[in-house]
Amino acid sequence: MPDYTAPTKDMAYVLHDVLKVQDRDIPGYADLEPDFTTAILDEAAKIASDVLAPLNAVGDQEGCTLENGVVRTPKGFRDAFEQVKEGGWTGLDMPEEYGGQNLPYVMGLALTEMLSAANQAFAMYQGLTHGAAAAILAHGTEAQKQTYLPDMISCNWTGTMNLTESHCGTDLGLMRTKAVPQDDGSYRISGEKIFISSGEHDMAENIIHLVLAKIPGGPDGIKGVSLFIVPKFLVKDDGNVGERNGVACGSIEEKMGIHGNSTCVMNYDEAQGWLLGEEHKGMRAMFTMMNEARIGVGIQGLAQADVAYQNALTYAKERLQGRAVTGTENPEGPADPLIVHPDIRRALMDQKSFVEGGRAFVLWGATLIDQAHRAKDADADGLISLMTPVIKGFLTDQGYDMTVLAQQIYGGHGYIEEHGMSQFTRDARIAMIYEGANGVQALDLVGRKLAQDGGKHVMAFFEMVKSFIKDNAEVEGMEPILTPLKQASKELQSAGMFFMQEGMKNPNAALSGSYDFMHMMGHVCLGLMWARMARASLDALANGTSDPDFHKTKLATARYYMARRLPATTMHLARIQSGADPVMGLAADQF
Amino acid sequence: MPDYTAPTKDMAYVLHDVLKVQDRDIPGYADLEPDFTTAILDEAAKIASDVLAPLNAVGDQEGCTLENGVVRTPKGFRDAFEQVKEGGWTGLDMPEEYGGQNLPYVMGLALTEMLSAANQAFAMYQGLTHGAAAAILAHGTEAQKQTYLPDMISCNWTGTMNLTESHCGTDLGLMRTKAVPQDDGSYRISGEKIFISSGEHDMAENIIHLVLAKIPGGPDGIKGVSLFIVPKFLVKDDGNVGERNGVACGSIEEKMGIHGNSTCVMNYDEAQGWLLGEEHKGMRAMFTMMNEARIGVGIQGLAQADVAYQNALTYAKERLQGRAVTGTENPEGPADPLIVHPDIRRALMDQKSFVEGGRAFVLWGATLIDQAHRAKDADADGLISLMTPVIKGFLTDQGYDMTVLAQQIYGGHGYIEEHGMSQFTRDARIAMIYEGANGVQALDLVGRKLAQDGGKHVMAFFEMVKSFIKDNAEVEGMEPILTPLKQASKELQSAGMFFMQEGMKNPNAALSGSYDFMHMMGHVCLGLMWARMARASLDALANGTSDPDFHKTKLATARYYMARRLPATTMHLARIQSGADPVMGLAADQF
Repeated sequence: MPDYTAPTKDMAYVLHDVLKVQDRDIPGYADLEPDFTTAILDEAAKIASDVLAPLNAVGDQEGCTLENGVVRTPKGFRDAFEQVKEGGWTGLDMPEEYGGQNLPYVMGLALTEMLSAANQAFAMYQGLTHGAAAAILAHGTEAQKQTYLPDMISCNWTGTMNLTESHCGTDLGLMRTKAVPQDDGSYRISGEKIFISSGEHDMAENIIHLVLAKIPGGPDGIKGVSLFIVPKFLVKDDGNVGERNGVACGSIEEKMGIHGNSTCVMNYDEAQGWLLGEEHKGMRAMFTMMNEARIGVGIQGLAQADVAYQNALTYAKERLQGRAVTGTENPEGPADPLIVHPDIRRALMDQKSFVEGGRAFVLWGATLIDQAHRAKDADADGLISLMTPVIKGFLTDQGYDMTVLAQQIYGGHGYIEEHGMSQFTRDARIAMIYEGANGVQALDLVGRKLAQDGGKHVMAFFEMVKSFIKDNAEVEGMEPILTPLKQASKELQSAGMFFMQEGMKNPNAALSGSYDFMHMMGHVCLGLMWARMARASLDALANGTSDPDFHKTKLATARYYMARRLPATTMHLARIQSGADPVMGLAADQF
Repeated sequence: MPDYTAPTKDMAYVLHDVLKVQDRDIPGYADLEPDFTTAILDEAAKIASDVLAPLNAVGDQEGCTLENGVVRTPKGFRDAFEQVKEGGWTGLDMPEEYGGQNLPYVMGLALTEMLSAANQAFAMYQGLTHGAAAAILAHGTEAQKQTYLPDMISCNWTGTMNLTESHCGTDLGLMRTKAVPQDDGSYRISGEKIFISSGEHDMAENIIHLVLAKIPGGPDGIKGVSLFIVPKFLVKDDGNVGERNGVACGSIEEKMGIHGNSTCVMNYDEAQGWLLGEEHKGMRAMFTMMNEARIGVGIQGLAQADVAYQNALTYAKERLQGRAVTGTENPEGPADPLIVHPDIRRALMDQKSFVEGGRAFVLWGATLIDQAHRAKDADADGLISLMTPVIKGFLTDQGYDMTVLAQQIYGGHGYIEEHGMSQFTRDARIAMIYEGANGVQALDLVGRKLAQDGGKHVMAFFEMVKSFIKDNAEVEGMEPILTPLKQASKELQSAGMFFMQEGMKNPNAALSGSYDFMHMMGHVCLGLMWARMARASLDALANGTSDPDFHKTKLATARYYMARRLPATTMHLARIQSGADPVMGLAADQF
């Protein structure tokens, strides 16, 4: 059985040594002193490692079952969910007036990483509830907030998002689910939604579905889509649950992974719903939830990579196989541990440098969100809007690859289900697909976000990298970090330039390279994060830290990322600059 | 349910237009006229597509069950196996004197691709039998050949290979299974072997296990390992099966994929066995089987990529989602098919260019084997020995990635089991692990094969690329193909040079880059194959082929590979040239 140790020490390092949250001028950040954040992280670590992680394999093996309309979650999930509720974890970063603790979003994201790493299928019940609550918070009327938020924030009720129909996922303009207005101001929702995570289960008193549907007579396509609140049980005036609404789970899907989460076909049969936000502006409201969900999914990629890496590392230290080529290292034993072999090291360093770099990346992204929301900083809002598809697409693609690398270290023992390494890859696989498949993230990045506000945000990012390099050019020890970062950043700019020049003439020239650009940008972001970590650790060492080994390890890992991961940008640039012709060279019927 | 169409047309193209097998001076090749090979490929295609493919999902869902020592294969497997037997497919390239048809190995490999693509779990029962028969053919006494080969070549009996024990996979010197010599010249084998594919099942009258074990008193480690023939039922003097031997399946593994193949723990309890080959030279004999198995596993990567690609292509043409950015292409429909989108094209072209390039690569490799074995050509033998780890490692890594890409095209529909795309990735995953995990292939390539015979074979390969470029430099249309190939080949040589210079001083400097080198070399090999295909198709077009569209498609795909896949070599070279320091920078306890 795999173990999970929550990376509280590394999180504290990123928060305090690198991002220096305690010094930031963002409302609520003044509280984020190391003692305070550590206390929270340690509590979160306990529930993740002690309560959720032991149920991860159980969830995979048992899965969810549907009988007479009732979905049963795997053994132990209900009790664990009670503990999550009791801890008030969903409300960590929610407003106090609805029962939350009003901590910054960055703390909520640290929690999300731990819960996802410990048990992704389980964490989704809680995570989607948080997302649905955030959408109601942003777009609901005060009455709606009063009605739904306290019970959602306590996880007494859970939430879902209902977008996909069998014939449309990405292209939601094709949807058929209808919402017919009623005299009392409510709507009657009818249609079938598929792939609804946490759609039905036995862990909450009520389930609040956020459902996209079309009001008849509205505009065609995506412009005629509205968002509705459709509770499983109607809520009575006193706030208690009343009669059952016309929504039911029709079936649950057999999937490659995340078996512990119920992925439901949801049937709406004149279910009563209430408009959330404005008519026909459903996508805008849904994107509040979706953007949060995309970052949460990016973290899932990172989280699965981390837990897989942790176990691969243990195995590489314990499993004896072969001898080091440079001379026996374990003369007492029948063989040396796997970790002596350079190719095993390569695989471990790939994982370690990704996980720690990715963690810094998302926590930095979370501070941008706090800055945008709490300090009303439009530039921060633009920058995180640019980064969201990168966080989602890059971290889930790479995170998946890392789970595959971790599994590989186990050899045949990684392929059998006994050791749990297969589950990490099977669970991580979904993160590349849901909340917008990664190709759609790349399209969002290159087709929309790059040019947003006249390209202001991507220019700001380039400037940020440039300033960092300039400001640190004289710092001893930074040169081997900064030189590759500079090169990679230049290549990223060249790719952007290519899109601007060629994309004008032929949009396919830009879109043929969108996926490569997303990965390039991810590498440059992680490169910047590693440069910032290198600087923070050099400072710590210069200031006589009590834990020099931790910081030396950071520096060695930073050098690894620069030397071995960042060169990917050169390949991506070459691919991008080959333009549309190779990609679009065949007619569809020539395939 | 996914479909599989055997690529007989593409195989005939590679055999006759590209490799020109009909003109080769290799014993048996004179028969390989297009009419003849096409007739065989078409028959093989029927059994693959009509008999095996429909059982692929069945095998995945049902898996194998063990009850009272008896393993039951999934419904339909037994009947299908009878049909494979009746067709005499296992004997296609086996000697006539033992019931085979004595065709060249290249034809056997074409068959292997089809069977693996249609149903990998099923094909393994037949494939391992072929491999075990090949080992007996190469190392057995005449009496052993007479006893075992006819029934194995007919698949009346099947074969297995028993290497792994729970504490040792790669490092077989640690093995504990014992073989105690008896007065009658046989041995008594005792021990436990794990991960034994096709170890026990209900489709054959007998199972012939080839088992590695140590004869007490022999040399320590790998030098004391011998290979034994251990039949499930002892064979009587009249050739019929007699009493049960002391070997039994203890349990079967729950795995990520290939559920239709029984992966067994095999318990040997004083089982009677007979030495195959010489005492303590077991690894040499096993490698006859292993080398064949490695190529067969490389083909599995290719085969799963092909079948996944075929289904992704169909889906991309049928699924309507979004509109082409350059203008509506399907005005009658509610949306355009996925295939209009550049990023979907990228994913399809990645797959297509890999599958067709990989197919040419393995079929070329098969002609080297025929040349080595049938024409006793030591240079061909050396070259295929160099290529074997590349075929295995590169084709299975990339093949797996391609199944992931294919699955991605289905979006959420790729993650649920209903459409079968998940199975392709889960089945393909094992190919990166068994028959030597891919890290071991890279080690074999860089640590042994590069320097073999004084580096003669890798030099011959470089020379082959160079000559091809030189010979085709003036051919119109070849320039955009040759320029990137030249660059990639130069980079590969630079990597080899780096290993020679730095590896002398520090073997870790070479081994830290071994995985990158394996991938670089794979890309250059596929690049060379695409260059050869481009030339063949240019010739066909110049000669007024009746199927110009086929050849134009080949040329466009060749250009894609060169423009979009080959630039990976630049990245790999940069990683390699960073040497051992980044990889080995941390002490084990610093992780």
